[in-house]
Amino acid sequence: MNPIMSKRDAAALVDSARIRQGRTWAELADHLGAPLVWTTAALLGNHPMTAQQAASTCELLGLGEDVAESLALQPSRGTPPEQMADPTIYRLIEALAVYGPALKALIHEEFGDGIMSAINFQVDFRRRPDPDGDRVVITLDGKFLDYRW
Amino acid sequence: MNPIMSKRDAAALVDSARIRQGRTWAELADHLGAPLVWTTAALLGNHPMTAQQAASTCELLGLGEDVAESLALQPSRGTPPEQMADPTIYRLIEALAVYGPALKALIHEEFGDGIMSAINFQVDFRRRPDPDGDRVVITLDGKFLDYRW
Amino acid sequence: MNPIMSKRDAAALVDSARIRQGRTWAELADHLGAPLVWTTAALLGNHPMTAQQAASTCELLGLGEDVAESLALQPSRGTPPEQMADPTIYRLIEALAVYGPALKALIHEEFGDGIMSAINFQVDFRRRPDPDGDRVVITLDGKFLDYRW
Amino acid sequence: MNPIMSKRDAAALVDSARIRQGRTWAELADHLGAPLVWTTAALLGNHPMTAQQAASTCELLGLGEDVAESLALQPSRGTPPEQMADPTIYRLIEALAVYGPALKALIHEEFGDGIMSAINFQVDFRRRPDPDGDRVVITLDGKFLDYRW
Amino acid sequence: MNPIMSKRDAAALVDSARIRQGRTWAELADHLGAPLVWTTAALLGNHPMTAQQAASTCELLGLGEDVAESLALQPSRGTPPEQMADPTIYRLIEALAVYGPALKALIHEEFGDGIMSAINFQVDFRRRPDPDGDRVVITLDGKFLDYRW
Amino acid sequence: MNPIMSKRDAAALVDSARIRQGRTWAELADHLGAPLVWTTAALLGNHPMTAQQAASTCELLGLGEDVAESLALQPSRGTPPEQMADPTIYRLIEALAVYGPALKALIHEEFGDGIMSAINFQVDFRRRPDPDGDRVVITLDGKFLDYRW
Amino acid sequence: MNPIMSKRDAAALVDSARIRQGRTWAELADHLGAPLVWTTAALLGNHPMTAQQAASTCELLGLGEDVAESLALQPSRGTPPEQMADPTIYRLIEALAVYGPALKALIHEEFGDGIMSAINFQVDFRRRPDPDGDRVVITLDGKFLDYRW
Amino acid sequence: MNPIMSKRDAAALVDSARIRQGRTWAELADHLGAPLVWTTAALLGNHPMTAQQAASTCELLGLGEDVAESLALQPSRGTPPEQMADPTIYRLIEALAVYGPALKALIHEEFGDGIMSAINFQVDFRRRPDPDGDRVVITLDGKFLDYRW
Amino acid sequence: MNPIMSKRDAAALVDSARIRQGRTWAELADHLGAPLVWTTAALLGNHPMTAQQAASTCELLGLGEDVAESLALQPSRGTPPEQMADPTIYRLIEALAVYGPALKALIHEEFGDGIMSAINFQVDFRRRPDPDGDRVVITLDGKFLDYRW
Amino acid sequence: MNPIMSKRDAAALVDSARIRQGRTWAELADHLGAPLVWTTAALLGNHPMTAQQAASTCELLGLGEDVAESLALQPSRGTPPEQMADPTIYRLIEALAVYGPALKALIHEEFGDGIMSAINFQVDFRRRPDPDGDRVVITLDGKFLDYRW
Repeated sequence: MNPIMSKRDAAALVDSARIRQGRTWAELADHLGAPLVWTTAALLGNHPMTAQQAASTCELLGLGEDVAESLALQPSRGTPPEQMADPTIYRLIEALAVYGPALKALIHEEFGDGIMSAINFQVDFRRRPDPDGDRVVITLDGKFLDYRW
Repeated sequence: MNPIMSKRDAAALVDSARIRQGRTWAELADHLGAPLVWTTAALLGNHPMTAQQAASTCELLGLGEDVAESLALQPSRGTPPEQMADPTIYRLIEALAVYGPALKALIHEEFGDGIMSAINFQVDFRRRPDPDGDRVVITLDGKFLDYRW
Repeated sequence: MNPIMSKRDAAALVDSARIRQGRTWAELADHLGAPLVWTTAALLGNHPMTAQQAASTCELLGLGEDVAESLALQPSRGTPPEQMADPTIYRLIEALAVYGPALKALIHEEFGDGIMSAINFQVDFRRRPDPDGDRVVITLDGKFLDYRW
Repeated sequence: MNPIMSKRDAAALVDSARIRQGRTWAELADHLGAPLVWTTAALLGNHPMTAQQAASTCELLGLGEDVAESLALQPSRGTPPEQMADPTIYRLIEALAVYGPALKALIHEEFGDGIMSAINFQVDFRRRPDPDGDRVVITLDGKFLDYRW
Repeated sequence: MNPIMSKRDAAALVDSARIRQGRTWAELADHLGAPLVWTTAALLGNHPMTAQQAASTCELLGLGEDVAESLALQPSRGTPPEQMADPTIYRLIEALAVYGPALKALIHEEFGDGIMSAINFQVDFRRRPDPDGDRVVITLDGKFLDYRW
Repeated sequence: MNPIMSKRDAAALVDSARIRQGRTWAELADHLGAPLVWTTAALLGNHPMTAQQAASTCELLGLGEDVAESLALQPSRGTPPEQMADPTIYRLIEALAVYGPALKALIHEEFGDGIMSAINFQVDFRRRPDPDGDRVVITLDGKFLDYRW
Repeated sequence: MNPIMSKRDAAALVDSARIRQGRTWAELADHLGAPLVWTTAALLGNHPMTAQQAASTCELLGLGEDVAESLALQPSRGTPPEQMADPTIYRLIEALAVYGPALKALIHEEFGDGIMSAINFQVDFRRRPDPDGDRVVITLDGKFLDYRW
Repeated sequence: MNPIMSKRDAAALVDSARIRQGRTWAELADHLGAPLVWTTAALLGNHPMTAQQAASTCELLGLGEDVAESLALQPSRGTPPEQMADPTIYRLIEALAVYGPALKALIHEEFGDGIMSAINFQVDFRRRPDPDGDRVVITLDGKFLDYRW
Repeated sequence: MNPIMSKRDAAALVDSARIRQGRTWAELADHLGAPLVWTTAALLGNHPMTAQQAASTCELLGLGEDVAESLALQPSRGTPPEQMADPTIYRLIEALAVYGPALKALIHEEFGDGIMSAINFQVDFRRRPDPDGDRVVITLDGKFLDYRW
Repeated sequence: MNPIMSKRDAAALVDSARIRQGRTWAELADHLGAPLVWTTAALLGNHPMTAQQAASTCELLGLGEDVAESLALQPSRGTPPEQMADPTIYRLIEALAVYGPALKALIHEEFGDGIMSAINFQVDFRRRPDPDGDRVVITLDGKFLDYRW
């Protein structure tokens, strides 16, 4: 018996098939009727898919059941440090190093002692046209959770 | 001669005066006519203020010229690791560990090879009422910069 | 003007006064009518107290208003790594290194994809008598939060 | 001759077979008549099983003797750092960063100078229904060991 | 289906073919009509090539389409720490450890609060003859980006 | 007897006096007749000055002999990690993470096995006007040293 | 009110007084009627003393009550990493890097699955004369604790 | 030609054969007429064996000449950090974190400035019966080496 | 096409062949007419050989052209941290931790502000007979390079 | 009572007095009749001096008894990491990263399994005139210690 394929291997196969077929992440999200950022994160291995979502994705991309089995697996979430240092991702980290304490102060001022949940949470990604150069707009939207004993 | 007060010491004095006078960060931002997240970040030491902004803030809070001098100083930006591990800030880091690779993939898909600038960049913070519990909404809005030789 | 006393300094004064007066953490919790682990964590600097709780504690211990002001401050939560390596604390960390993946698997099996909140969360501490040697019993009780987009 | 299969490989095979057969960890524990958290931790590689337990588990799951041989092996206990950063496990670590010093103080107050053993130790996991959302309840129960020369 | 070859593997094949055929990086850059440093960085895996550039390079070096497919892939940019410690690269890092704060001070003095972009950026490499020993001259040329809200 | 003032303290005093008097780093370099980047790096503590340069600088800025004594001291060169993470400096580090292996390959191709010296080395800093936005141009110019037994 | 003196400061005062009076650690242990290694570790800050032991030590060394108060405090145990790298201590660490896996294997072979307690534990130190050069003999003696659920 | 088998692979084969044949480390040591801890450490890869010892061990365990060749190889000594964190080994490290500075102080008091050699060094392991639970006794015995210029 | 063999693999094959044929590093150096330490470092992967040296070494040891091709490759120099912790290498590191600042002070006193080159550099290794035990004598001999702008 | 001055503070005072009086390390070594590198290392805090050496040094430099008391103290040896990264010291570390495995191989070839002692050890420093630029020559001379049980 073979163990279930790792989500890292499944992600590499999904991305390879996607590129070779000229499909976008947006098309995959549309195909599933699921949010764009969620779908991309799930196919890259940081969310489990339902068996149906996994099968539908693999059918679209011509991938086998072993990939679908992996996509439905519960992940151990995270990203290796060397990928976090990629400049495109690092700018997001840097923004938190600059604005993190301010956001903490404002969360406490507006809501009291607590956090913005990263679990009851959604991320929106869009392009905003601008004459000085179009802009990337990322919206983090999480439920406030107060420290409650 | 004394050296200019460190921005860390200035931030502690600003925050102490703010709390003792019962003022909010929002009031300080309104007083300056500056954006909320920017003002908070600047007063906590991660942006330089103009001499006028610094003086106006210190006048409002009853702080001395030594504090104003420090607020106008060019900062070395960042946040110590032990503060980044505070749960309220950590949730933001965790969100990037889960969604960072997806956001990178979508930036490249939508814009091509490049990054969202963290310099030509703004952050919006607001509360969104929700019957299941109000939500923290943070919007990161940065100019796309393509790798251009 | 002096900045507000750091919570580390306030905790050292609270603990010193407590020891010199021969008071237990349990007495302090009883005095406040607050849970034992919460009270201890708050006085050691990892939770903010209400102004009333802070004043009442300082009155009992004969500490000044500067300490009370600090106890009411919003904390940056955490513990320095050198304290986490103290054997009494380290055993708890080691237990998570041994049982962490099992607890994750069981949370997913019982509740689905999500986490046990560390915010909507309480900790109970008690002694359980046992003929083979009394036992420390620590109960972690947190609300389940499912990954919800 | 082949070396004995690593416990990491054995765990991957156990988990894969478990998922494909639709069995829960609880069923495996019941099958062995062993505690739930212990069984899960052992099958994930952090405890050795007796030869009988290992054989019985492999028989149930249709796995070979090579897996059973590995399950009975003395482990080198621990969890890789990247797994400890998974949000479901991280919340437990974070709770210790917030409450660790308080728990240390209370252990010393109640028992004197010593530790809660992580060896003579058991962990209980259960769901507690709650109208505001069911809760995860984890109980750590370890023998107090006093520093004794 | 095989996943797309990693850029690390592709770089090893490009470099191996280049050495065996006695070609220089300069010849490869000339062949593409692309800048020298950019071409070398791209072939070593830190920039994506256009499909045409990738195909043309592989044709010249007698490499297969699997290599070309990889060269056109969007990279996760960076260099492993053990390579950064190689003496030839380390001297560049050391120079920044010595001159970094000075360059920061001069950027702010000349341009105001902002950075030299590493994205809208080019690097020139050349030999400068000198009677005391020829010199390596590396020019970093990046657009100034001011902190702009 | 007091020990010689640390170079960190001397740099803070030099920078404070410079700002309060409205002088630029360029003026200080002109005053000394020394290169701009060298002067800035020396005054920030990463090069020793001659006694004459140190005295002349302190006279200009109205600083005492204790500062001059420190400026002439042999430094232990380097920059603390938290300063290297400041975005203005970090972009230079990032550029080396992207182009370091390429520069290494080109040094070896052009010069053979060896390094660009960071000791027999100079750095030039200038602004290059550009209609798309002015550019920061930093030139690293170091003697090639071949591995020679 | 002053907080209780830190154990680090108390240890420095104990050691300074000990050296100035020409007393050995062995004399201090004899004075207390306590084991040699335990006494030294306690006075250096890694064990609490009883109030009587602390007072008796301070009387002997002519130290004040503030030192005695600190010696009786519950410690956060451990040693900073820079002290662990001192060659005299490092040799002990190195010995564990060489023999640690062997000792683990032999503990399991002789006793079963468990550990040697570091809490119910004593350390003996002595000189063993040897014609080839006298030897340091350190005996670690800890109760076996089996993994027991 | 194949390279010599790594000592890690050889150790895995030795341990696997030992377990399958039901042999103890003590039997292997007796077979060689060598000390118990030394033999175990050597077979786990931290000491080289003579060719004769290696051949005799492999003959006993039915292993091939490739294993013997590896056992005779000069090792690069040490243990990976993740194994040092195993609880059975970690207790030894923790004991040094608690008693290391005391042992250093006592070595200097008894012998002067120097170290206990970890090279001219032996380790004894034994069980000491005790009515309160048998004890693990580990004796470290190393030649004193004084700092001698 | 296969990529060129890594220098790590080549070194393993060179060392394996050397051991099996009973040849010393000194014989290999003599065979090449090259310095002993240089030859050993080159064959272990930290210096490139000329094609002729590589071929001659492989001919002597009966190794293939793939090994020779690797030996001639430009290396990325360095040693993994786990090898640097081997006791035989660590003693050299420790010596620098003890004497590094003194050597720095003496280089500056004797030569002025600069370094001992590690590139224009040679290392001599020899045995010095001594009635108290023979000694290892390692001589580091590098050109002084002054900080020169 | 004040604790004994730290060796770091004593070193700063020795170096400050030495510089102000225009004395060289060589003169201090001559004054003591002690080896040059040893004397420098001792005065910088990595060796204890005899009371007589300490007093004689302080008399020469006009320093008080508090400094002498510190110079005679047993040190905790080592150098902080930020000083090890100074370029003058780093080149020595880099040389070990390049030649460490070779020196290990040659020590084993010439002497057998063991180490060069860093305790029974001396370091010689000298200038060697050379028409191509004078050279720094550092000789490490340590007793061979074989692994001996």
